[in-house]
Amino acid sequence: MRVLGVHRRSIIAATDQRGIEVIDQRALPHALSILMLRTAGDVARAIREMLVRGAPLIGVVAAYGLCFAVREDASDAGIERTYRTLLATRPTAVNLRWALDKMREALLAVPSAERFDTGWRCAQALCDDDVATNFAIGKHGLTLLRSLFDRKSGSRLNVLTHCNAGWIATVDWGTALAPIYLAHDSGMPIHVWVDETRPRNQGALTAWELGQHGVQHTVVVDSAGGHLMQHGLVDMCIVGADRVTARGDVCNKIGTYLKALAARDNGVPFYVALPYPTIDWTVEDGIGSIPIEERDPSEVLSVYGAVDHADPTGPVPPGLTAVDPAGPVPPAQLATPTLRWGSVRPYPAATRAANYAFDVTPAKLITGFITERGITPASREGLRSLYPERVRAP
Amino acid sequence: MRVLGVHRRSIIAATDQRGIEVIDQRALPHALSILMLRTAGDVARAIREMLVRGAPLIGVVAAYGLCFAVREDASDAGIERTYRTLLATRPTAVNLRWALDKMREALLAVPSAERFDTGWRCAQALCDDDVATNFAIGKHGLTLLRSLFDRKSGSRLNVLTHCNAGWIATVDWGTALAPIYLAHDSGMPIHVWVDETRPRNQGALTAWELGQHGVQHTVVVDSAGGHLMQHGLVDMCIVGADRVTARGDVCNKIGTYLKALAARDNGVPFYVALPYPTIDWTVEDGIGSIPIEERDPSEVLSVYGAVDHADPTGPVPPGLTAVDPAGPVPPAQLATPTLRWGSVRPYPAATRAANYAFDVTPAKLITGFITERGITPASREGLRSLYPERVRAP
Repeated sequence: MRVLGVHRRSIIAATDQRGIEVIDQRALPHALSILMLRTAGDVARAIREMLVRGAPLIGVVAAYGLCFAVREDASDAGIERTYRTLLATRPTAVNLRWALDKMREALLAVPSAERFDTGWRCAQALCDDDVATNFAIGKHGLTLLRSLFDRKSGSRLNVLTHCNAGWIATVDWGTALAPIYLAHDSGMPIHVWVDETRPRNQGALTAWELGQHGVQHTVVVDSAGGHLMQHGLVDMCIVGADRVTARGDVCNKIGTYLKALAARDNGVPFYVALPYPTIDWTVEDGIGSIPIEERDPSEVLSVYGAVDHADPTGPVPPGLTAVDPAGPVPPAQLATPTLRWGSVRPYPAATRAANYAFDVTPAKLITGFITERGITPASREGLRSLYPERVRAP
Repeated sequence: MRVLGVHRRSIIAATDQRGIEVIDQRALPHALSILMLRTAGDVARAIREMLVRGAPLIGVVAAYGLCFAVREDASDAGIERTYRTLLATRPTAVNLRWALDKMREALLAVPSAERFDTGWRCAQALCDDDVATNFAIGKHGLTLLRSLFDRKSGSRLNVLTHCNAGWIATVDWGTALAPIYLAHDSGMPIHVWVDETRPRNQGALTAWELGQHGVQHTVVVDSAGGHLMQHGLVDMCIVGADRVTARGDVCNKIGTYLKALAARDNGVPFYVALPYPTIDWTVEDGIGSIPIEERDPSEVLSVYGAVDHADPTGPVPPGLTAVDPAGPVPPAQLATPTLRWGSVRPYPAATRAANYAFDVTPAKLITGFITERGITPASREGLRSLYPERVRAP
């Protein structure tokens, strides 16, 4: 999507195959900091520390990570070891396992000497596949937005989204935001309520993305959605997903469930946008079966952001390399060098916190799924009708 | 309740009747900053800028404000003018109007020369009345907690609360926290899930209060409550209220409605604790009729808290006087002089936000009310059964 007026993908593979450029999402929205990841270790760290985040994106980045590992150790055992390391970086998103499984299968099928080239081609294909998939999600979602818009006889459409399921959470287009970008590009007046999405404030990423692309939006606290829906200020909710079970339960950023409850209570359509690798066909009961990542309480107790202008202290973590982005973006425009990052702690020093990263929204609360193959009800039958090849004998 | 090991009320009237000492809640939890309010202007500012907050507290503070105004102008017109100024400081809480009505009635009933003394006595009575009322709420709420605790056969009770309805939101005891304090004091093992309550993070006040009194607690983001309830980690929700309608709809801090939805979906009892001045007998439909205060978007876009130790920059706003608190609290323990306050902005500079301060929870989602007269269903009949003197002919 557009950044500073030019098109960019969130992953750019180096033409010499020495690494991939990714956007350090922790520096957003204050600076567009581009990092080069060259090893599986770089990749594991970038995922674990959430320099890259978003279920589709971490799958593709992990695929490149497994490819890089082959350059150092192309043995079956080496591949298996790196596979396990990368898989352990985030426990909830299922796209990660899907991408790593694809890669491992492709790598083990060829002799050691061919493994790097095969891995590189496979990772590139996963990358391009993600873009095509998300564009298709956008096209299908657009039909929903258009029919809502037609019913409003021309007045502005209001969509609420939670967390960031935009283009930077994928390779391009995003999942939940893809229909919104296409609606905006088609000239439809559309406005997005952006949940701030505590504790990591991924709403700032969504606000940044939408602002860069010129889509109208307003940030609200995570508690506000119910009030907005009670007063007719939300026409539709669209969120992404980290994992969807075979019967249609949705694991997504903590707080998604509360928005789905409010949507049902107020008759607001609640859609989940997802690509097929997000479906975990091995799990039925989302609440009972999906492990919910508990992250560091400091994410709750401290809030990170721009401080008043002061010393330029960059957010690049030690050991990773900051590079000027390639391409036509003038480097001078990429950062705000007088900006300083910092955090504040609203709590007493002794306060303890718990930091559950995701929750599960039961299928019964979801109006439908928007996938690259179309729209379907959030149910076992709905998912099977779109992916008949996955139907097994009972 | 206990602060630094000694008992304190949130309002202490000066014995020379020149002013009242209040706690600057914006400095909490980082420092116990005590401010002297001497004029109606001081009081209006303290309420408007949320140095004092909490529906019961602002009612009592406003009462003193009207009393101070009488010292300068004891005429009917002067009283009326100050009444209107104070009433306009916060539009949602109904206790404010209730307390000001009580005061105005008492002042206008006596000759000008007696008005200050009458006003002072009336404000003192409102202050003491608030303490007695909240203690009674605590006693009634304790019976609910005890019966839940008995059913858990001795394992720790988990209560979730939203915002701050503790002793610093009142004169003492609090509303939602009163039963919790009494349960703790009675030796019951009780743990509180504290919603951080964006955008102003009043959860920090609740965490501070509970910590000072020794009650176990854990802060969670506002989005976490649904997940906690899905997993059986919440035995009961108790919140306060800014206004309750005659049919039992509850206006309270933004996000209360979402917690009530989750409680219903998971069979968790959801109680609202309130004193009688919170009931607005003139309003039926909370969603349609209660004006929801929209506050400055900067409260959403910036987060305020303690920065790493640096220059001691006190949070006392210009024009108000910081005083050492009276009584047995050693002044040296009251502040952390090396602490600096500041804010960070997680959003792009151009981002817009909306800041709705309250929402309305329909009566149907509420298990019951805890008032100073007992427990009652959240319905017109329930409220009338407790306050039969309010029943009018249809």
